[in-house]
Amino acid sequence: MPNIVYIATSLDGYIAKVDGGIDWLMEIPNPEQSDYGFADFLSRIDGVLMGRKTYQIVQDFDQWIYTKPVFVLTQTLDVLPGKWAPKAEIVKGEPTEVIAALNNRGINNIYVDGGKTIQSLLSLDLIDEMIITKIPILLGDGIPLFGTGNSELKFEHTETDVYYGGLVKSRYLRKR
Amino acid sequence: MPNIVYIATSLDGYIAKVDGGIDWLMEIPNPEQSDYGFADFLSRIDGVLMGRKTYQIVQDFDQWIYTKPVFVLTQTLDVLPGKWAPKAEIVKGEPTEVIAALNNRGINNIYVDGGKTIQSLLSLDLIDEMIITKIPILLGDGIPLFGTGNSELKFEHTETDVYYGGLVKSRYLRKR
Repeated sequence: MPNIVYIATSLDGYIAKVDGGIDWLMEIPNPEQSDYGFADFLSRIDGVLMGRKTYQIVQDFDQWIYTKPVFVLTQTLDVLPGKWAPKAEIVKGEPTEVIAALNNRGINNIYVDGGKTIQSLLSLDLIDEMIITKIPILLGDGIPLFGTGNSELKFEHTETDVYYGGLVKSRYLRKR
Repeated sequence: MPNIVYIATSLDGYIAKVDGGIDWLMEIPNPEQSDYGFADFLSRIDGVLMGRKTYQIVQDFDQWIYTKPVFVLTQTLDVLPGKWAPKAEIVKGEPTEVIAALNNRGINNIYVDGGKTIQSLLSLDLIDEMIITKIPILLGDGIPLFGTGNSELKFEHTETDVYYGGLVKSRYLRKR
């Protein structure tokens, strides 16, 4: 603990297009080369837990953007594909067990990434914090950040920052 | 023109629970009795266009909250039910025609309310501005603000205000 979501979505709540495309995210004008606080965020986490599909997206990146250990939650893969495979480790099992195992290894502050992974942790009320950046676009369709598997969960808003290009980043803590 | 959305949603993008319930919206602590800028907003519109279901929600309110003419877009009702019926007028037809007819009557700045009505105008790219207030709660399920009927639509962020209780209100203008 805590398990933290850090993600960008369209105004209609999609994290990618239906085909997984994130071109709409990549083409945001960024003249000041802002990282939108990402390096600061990485400095306070111990590791990243992502789903297989998110790994498939980042494996195509030219640069490996993570400065902390990355764990890929997959029940289907036994070996990670691509050039970044040595950078990440496969973890298997139920989310509760996976988180407990990571905590046992000293990975306590976990950056949780990927729609399916986030939804599965939310359905178990295992998310403690969410940092969500809203991109000023309606995609109309795509892969949603949230699903219908969780019960009603209240959060406390702590801060909102607005970045160049109209990106609105809000931070929420789970109210228990 | 312009047609303006002014609405509150949960973090997962719902405007009401599955049964239409908005108790989660009503129970937001509001010690300063803020109207979150609603009166200011009403002062710059000429009329309200809402769907039948939204009318069914506001007809139960103890007070009539609108200071401008209200039009209820319905293809099924011929007479409005409830005590506020004299306050509103039924309009019928395709959104494009309905908007044109309202514009002809001098109703140019239109507050568009209700999930179905908003979605149907978005599918025709008839929304020029959106003021969306995010409530810090995940409902898990409900009536969504956005649907899958619109194409990709870009917006320009103009401002974000944060209110007591962690409500984040952002204003967006359609980029054409």
